[in-house]
Amino acid sequence: MSEVVTKATLAKTTTGILAGLTTDQKNEALLIMADALQREAAAIISANAEDLERGRIGGTPESMLDRLALNESRIDDIAEGLRQIAELPDPIGDRLELLERPNGLTIEKLRVPLGVIGIIYEARPNVTVDAAGLCLKTGNAVVLRGGSSAISSNRKIVEVLHHALAETAMPQNALQLIEDPNRTSVDQMLKLNGLLDVIIPRGGSSLIQNVVMNATVPVIETGAGICHTYLDSSAVPEMAQAISLNAKAQRPSVCNSMETLLVHRDYAESNLLALAEVFKEANVELRGCPETLSLIPWALSATPEDYATEYNDYILNLKVVGDLDEALQHIAQYGTKHSECIVTEDTDTAARFLQEVDAAAVYHNASTRFTDGFEFGFGAEIGISTQKLHARGPMGLPALTSTKYKIYGHGQIRG
Amino acid sequence: MSEVVTKATLAKTTTGILAGLTTDQKNEALLIMADALQREAAAIISANAEDLERGRIGGTPESMLDRLALNESRIDDIAEGLRQIAELPDPIGDRLELLERPNGLTIEKLRVPLGVIGIIYEARPNVTVDAAGLCLKTGNAVVLRGGSSAISSNRKIVEVLHHALAETAMPQNALQLIEDPNRTSVDQMLKLNGLLDVIIPRGGSSLIQNVVMNATVPVIETGAGICHTYLDSSAVPEMAQAISLNAKAQRPSVCNSMETLLVHRDYAESNLLALAEVFKEANVELRGCPETLSLIPWALSATPEDYATEYNDYILNLKVVGDLDEALQHIAQYGTKHSECIVTEDTDTAARFLQEVDAAAVYHNASTRFTDGFEFGFGAEIGISTQKLHARGPMGLPALTSTKYKIYGHGQIRG
Repeated sequence: MSEVVTKATLAKTTTGILAGLTTDQKNEALLIMADALQREAAAIISANAEDLERGRIGGTPESMLDRLALNESRIDDIAEGLRQIAELPDPIGDRLELLERPNGLTIEKLRVPLGVIGIIYEARPNVTVDAAGLCLKTGNAVVLRGGSSAISSNRKIVEVLHHALAETAMPQNALQLIEDPNRTSVDQMLKLNGLLDVIIPRGGSSLIQNVVMNATVPVIETGAGICHTYLDSSAVPEMAQAISLNAKAQRPSVCNSMETLLVHRDYAESNLLALAEVFKEANVELRGCPETLSLIPWALSATPEDYATEYNDYILNLKVVGDLDEALQHIAQYGTKHSECIVTEDTDTAARFLQEVDAAAVYHNASTRFTDGFEFGFGAEIGISTQKLHARGPMGLPALTSTKYKIYGHGQIRG
Repeated sequence: MSEVVTKATLAKTTTGILAGLTTDQKNEALLIMADALQREAAAIISANAEDLERGRIGGTPESMLDRLALNESRIDDIAEGLRQIAELPDPIGDRLELLERPNGLTIEKLRVPLGVIGIIYEARPNVTVDAAGLCLKTGNAVVLRGGSSAISSNRKIVEVLHHALAETAMPQNALQLIEDPNRTSVDQMLKLNGLLDVIIPRGGSSLIQNVVMNATVPVIETGAGICHTYLDSSAVPEMAQAISLNAKAQRPSVCNSMETLLVHRDYAESNLLALAEVFKEANVELRGCPETLSLIPWALSATPEDYATEYNDYILNLKVVGDLDEALQHIAQYGTKHSECIVTEDTDTAARFLQEVDAAAVYHNASTRFTDGFEFGFGAEIGISTQKLHARGPMGLPALTSTKYKIYGHGQIRG
C-alpha cells in the first residue's frame, strides 16, 4: 500500500473514537500539544533550518524564506493558536433541530464530525499545526499534505504532536502527515473516496484549481479573490479613500484585498485624481480604462486580462462606470464571488448592490479586508470558501462538521 | 456552442432575476405551471405514448414501462405536487445569523439560491416537474437532463411549463431541458464549472457513481442504500418482526429499505425461525451466514458480495452476531452511511448504536423506511444525501440554498 492509502486508512480507524471524545478530552489534547511545541522549540527550529538551507541553495526568494522561517516567538504564536482553539465552543453534539412527528417519532438533528479531512497546502509550517488543531477540535481525523519545501519542519512538528498525543485520550493516528514529496501523493489523495470525506486546499490558485478539477472526493474550494470596491456618485470622499486604500494596500497578498476599483463617472470627475495621489504615495501601480487615463496622467492602460487577474500585489485596476448596472455587470464578469464592496450614502443603491452581487461577502461602507474568521468573531478560520455548497465565506469550526439524524421510535413502521 | 453550454448559459442569465423574486411571485408561477400541466394533459399523454411505444419496441420490461407511463390521474398528482411546493415556506431571505462586532460592523448571514442546479436523472417523467418545482421555488435556475427513454414526455412537459412561465414573473430560461440523448451531454454537464453551481444525480447507483467520479462541478451524492437492522438480545419479538418486515418488504425497490438483518445470537436462537417464516410468507428470499443456515433450513448461503449488494428486491441477507460490537463492525464495513436501525429494549445499547454508527439517519425501534423528506415533515424532497458535505439525509428546500454575508459599516477599515 502507498503511504497515502496506509496513512488515510490509519486515520479512518480513529473516527469512531474521535466522535465520542468529550470537549474536555479534546481541549486537554490541544493544550498538551501546545506545551509540547514550546518545549521542543529548539528541535523544531533546527529542523526548520534544514528547510531554509535547502531553500537558499535552491534559490528561493527571501520573502518566501521568511514565510517558511520559524523562531521561538513564531512557535509561541503557533502554540498560542492551539490554546485559542481549545477555548472555542465545541460545535460537536449541538442539536440543530428537534422534530416531533404525528406518528410519535422523535427526530433529532445533531452536529457530528465530517470524518477524515484531507488538507493540501503550501509552504508555511504554521498551517500544519493550525489545521491539525481545528480538525481535532471538531473530532475529525486529518491527513496533512504540506509543501515539500517545509517537509523537515512539518515532519518534526508532527513527530512532536504525536508524542504529545500519547499522553491524551486523542488517538495518535488521528493526525497523519504525508511525507512523499511527489505530486503523485496529491493525485492519490484527490481520488481517495471512502477514506477521505472532504479535501480542503489551502494555497495559491494553481494548487486550488488542481484540486477542484481533479478531485473525486468532495472539495471545499477556498481562496481565489478578485475583489472589487465600487465608489458610487454619493460616496463621501474621505470614507471612499480610506476604504479603498485599506482594501488594496493594508495587506495586498491576501485573498480579500481589492484588485479593481470601480468608480462612478460623477465621483471620478471630482475625486479620482486626489484618490490616485493617495495610491501613488502608497506605491500602488494604477492601470485603468481610457477614461481613467484621461484623469490620471501616470496610470497605465488596463487590459481585459488585468481585470481578470488576482495580483496579490501593489497593483490596482481602475474603471470608470456610468451607473450601478455597469458596476454590477463588471463584477459579475470578473469577480470570483469572494468579497465585494460599495461605498455610497444612498441606502437604496446599497441595498440593490448587496442583493444583486453574487458573492460570499458583500459590504456597504466597509473594507473587503474584513472577510476573515477572526474579524467575523468565529475565533478561528480554516479558510474562506468561495463555493456555494456546505460553507460560504469565512469557515469557522461549524464548517468542519456534518450532521446526523437520530430517530427515536417505539415500533413505528411505514404504512 | 453545444446544446449543454448554450442552455446552461441561458439559465445562468436568469439567476439575478430569480434571486430577487418574491415568494408570492414564485408561488404564483408554480400554480400556473400546475394548471397548465392539467390543461395540456392530453398532449402530454400523447407524447408519453411515443416513449412507451419506443420502449415496447425496444423490449423494455413492463415494470419499467409502468414507471414511465403517464395518465390523467398521474398528471393530476404531478400538478398537485407543484401546488404542495407552492404552499411550503420559502427559505430564501431567511436570516440565519446576525452578528454585531465590537468595531460597529453588522454582519447578516442570509439564505440565497445556489444559482444554477443541474439534475441528471433516469426514466420517470414526474421527476422533470418535481425537480423543476423545487429548484424554482428556491430561486434557482435548473438544467434538467433526463433519460432518453422519456425524452418525448419530458420535451412536451417542458414546452408546457415554458408556455406557462410566459404569463409569470419567473423567466422562462430558468428552466432548461437537455434533449441530446448522447452520454456526451452528461459528460459535458459534469465539467461545467462556472455555469453550474451544483449537480444532483437522481437514479441508480451506476448513474450516481458516474457523476461522483467524473464531475468537477460540486455534487450532492444521493441514493445508494445498503441499510441494516440489528435485532439486539433484548428486542421484543413482535416489534422486531414488524420493523424488519416493514424495512424489507413494504417497498423493497427504494434506497431506505433494508438489505441485511443482523441478529444477536441470543435472539436468533429463540426467535429467528419464527421471523424467517414471516419473511417466507412475504416471498422474501433469505441468504445467511453458516449459523443462520443451521437455524433456517431453507435459507441460502450468503457471500461477502451479497452483504455488499443493494438488492432493491425481495432478497434479504441475515447474519448472526455475538454482540453489539460485531454488529457495528459489520455495518461499518458494508453500510453506505444511509439509514441504520437497532431494535432493543436496552437504552444504553441503543445510545451506543446511535452514537457509533456513522450514517445519515440512525433509528432506535423504528423502520429505516422513514428516511424521507415527507416522513420527516419537510413537505418535499429533492433526494437523500449520503455524503457529509452541505446536506445529509433527506433534503428539503433548505438543501437547495446557499448563504451570503451582508456586512453593514460606516467607513470601517482593518487595522
